Amino acid sequence: MFEVLHTEGRARLGRFTTVHGMIQTPVFMNVGTSAAIKGGVSSMDLKEVGAQVELSNTYHLHVRPGDDVIYDMGGLHRFMNWDRPILTDSGGFQVFSLAQLRKITEEGVQFSSHVDGRKIFMGPEESMRIQSNLASTIAMAFDECVSIPSTYEYTKASCERTYRWLVRCKEEMKRLNSLPETINPHQMLFGINQGAIFDDLRLSHMEQIAALDLDGYAIGGLAVGETHEEMYHILDLTDLVAPRNKPRYLMGVGTPANIIEAVFRGIDFFDCVMPSRNARHGHLCTHQGVINLNNQKYERDSAPIEQGCGCPACRNYSRAYIRHLLRAKEMLGMRLAVLHNLYFYNHLMEEIRTAIAQDRFEQYRDENAAVMARRI
Amino acid sequence: MFEVLHTEGRARLGRFTTVHGMIQTPVFMNVGTSAAIKGGVSSMDLKEVGAQVELSNTYHLHVRPGDDVIYDMGGLHRFMNWDRPILTDSGGFQVFSLAQLRKITEEGVQFSSHVDGRKIFMGPEESMRIQSNLASTIAMAFDECVSIPSTYEYTKASCERTYRWLVRCKEEMKRLNSLPETINPHQMLFGINQGAIFDDLRLSHMEQIAALDLDGYAIGGLAVGETHEEMYHILDLTDLVAPRNKPRYLMGVGTPANIIEAVFRGIDFFDCVMPSRNARHGHLCTHQGVINLNNQKYERDSAPIEQGCGCPACRNYSRAYIRHLLRAKEMLGMRLAVLHNLYFYNHLMEEIRTAIAQDRFEQYRDENAAVMARRI
Repeated sequence: MFEVLHTEGRARLGRFTTVHGMIQTPVFMNVGTSAAIKGGVSSMDLKEVGAQVELSNTYHLHVRPGDDVIYDMGGLHRFMNWDRPILTDSGGFQVFSLAQLRKITEEGVQFSSHVDGRKIFMGPEESMRIQSNLASTIAMAFDECVSIPSTYEYTKASCERTYRWLVRCKEEMKRLNSLPETINPHQMLFGINQGAIFDDLRLSHMEQIAALDLDGYAIGGLAVGETHEEMYHILDLTDLVAPRNKPRYLMGVGTPANIIEAVFRGIDFFDCVMPSRNARHGHLCTHQGVINLNNQKYERDSAPIEQGCGCPACRNYSRAYIRHLLRAKEMLGMRLAVLHNLYFYNHLMEEIRTAIAQDRFEQYRDENAAVMARRI
Repeated sequence: MFEVLHTEGRARLGRFTTVHGMIQTPVFMNVGTSAAIKGGVSSMDLKEVGAQVELSNTYHLHVRPGDDVIYDMGGLHRFMNWDRPILTDSGGFQVFSLAQLRKITEEGVQFSSHVDGRKIFMGPEESMRIQSNLASTIAMAFDECVSIPSTYEYTKASCERTYRWLVRCKEEMKRLNSLPETINPHQMLFGINQGAIFDDLRLSHMEQIAALDLDGYAIGGLAVGETHEEMYHILDLTDLVAPRNKPRYLMGVGTPANIIEAVFRGIDFFDCVMPSRNARHGHLCTHQGVINLNNQKYERDSAPIEQGCGCPACRNYSRAYIRHLLRAKEMLGMRLAVLHNLYFYNHLMEEIRTAIAQDRFEQYRDENAAVMARRI
């Protein structure tokens, strides 16, 4: 159940109740592709960096170790020892971006595994069954993430098929949740809005899927090549027709500035690999902008990554030490950098929530969005 | 200062007092080559696995980030945020095994860095200066680690030079410890016994270096190709002439069984990359033998690596999960595996100390040495 506790403009402070506990929104979901955050970050560490939700990838887990293995181990929560909410994506995005030799039909997608080349078929029902085996808190609908640019005709036909797939996802999820052997019979389903950057398709598709009364709605197909302005424009549009009483999830976005701008446009859920990926390359978030720890000027810098930061890296280690570890390709360097950036993102959301609660989010946005985007 | 608190046969329970705190012996030193344990293990983690001593490599730190950088950062303890004892090796072993185009003279060794090919000269004085910059608790003498097999003539000449180098190390260390700018003026020096597998050379060299009244004595040049029996024989020999009132350190050894056998022969200090290296490949220590987590039979095994183990991996995660992470090449898999093996080694030493204190070490050896060496 989703409750909007407070609004400031279109920004929403909310609370999403799940069988695995309550999620305070706006929230950032921490991406652990193969049931682990890249950089050696454990589920224990996730708690230490203030994570509320972990996100795992259905495609990756289906391919390895297999969702049947995870089902036998009692589901993803027990497998990775994480008792808070987990969102699983549908596998659709990876099937369309990672897998080889894919062939799309009305039924679904035939493709070859990127690990061993094995032929796999995935459609709406298969995606739901895999996610039911994983027993995540929130399952995502199986959709086609249309690449940008695509023609209007292709995008329109794809949106229609994605809608038909969504109807099938909903039915299959209902069936699975009623089976006695299902680990999480309260699994929720989020639909995904597509339509590339075509205003009328985005609007009509959102209206269509809104009518299905799902647990939440994602805006998909963004952050794949369009400009920030085009993305914000889509958010302005979909805000008009997305149900107000359901959480809204902007998939795969983004920088702290992107997140602040999207919260400003009514978004509640986020996920992105950027904080962990950038961290592994030495690019670290601070409230003054992004620092590149590879820079020579940090060689003898005894300060933490950010003064006053409460993350495990900043509480214990200097820029000079972490820089050395990154240059020596010591895993510990990546680990500390990732812990910092994830802490930054999870606490950014806390700052945003507090600002909305205190009716000063617009001020927070003015003071931070541009500053955090700087490279310093 | 070293005190032998209790003995059982030749096995010694001891206490070594240093400026960075007390070391209970027999002790295992945890190898953090470039000021970090491989596998993403931090100095905080080291405390959690019961580590007493961290060991860093002089050669690696000299090459990157540079001992001048670490000196400027206040020494290795502050750099890596570890307040317990640190032992630095002399760089000799790496110069002879890793570096390219090396040329040995009476003065020292000229070689090219394995990182950037830069020409570097290291002799006894240089090694002491670098280790003084690192400000470790215990510095190791600069020696030549003679490869096995080597001729008697070469080994004899090398031992004589290593002795002359040791005299220079002692003098230089004394000078450095008296300088006002030295970070750790209480830095200790251990000499290293060499002689390959020639009984008379081992004995005469140990007698020579014992006369220098150093803080401790290492047995070097073992675990480089000789059999276990040859190694144990050397330990039986050197035990006859090594000073009883000084700690004895068997360098680079070894398996749990090797350690138990060496303690049985009077050794107090150990270090080895084996527990962390094996862990990264999925080979994990238990009291019943070594398990290979890559084995298919662990795919759905919900048990911890070892039942009853108190390490962070066993307290929180299953064999099935860690196996999956290792196969998916997720850093977290290596990290958890390394944490387990280091915990095992540090607690093995605790078990050994308790057994000596209770006069049942020989029983402990009978019950464990062979069992722990099994592959199960």
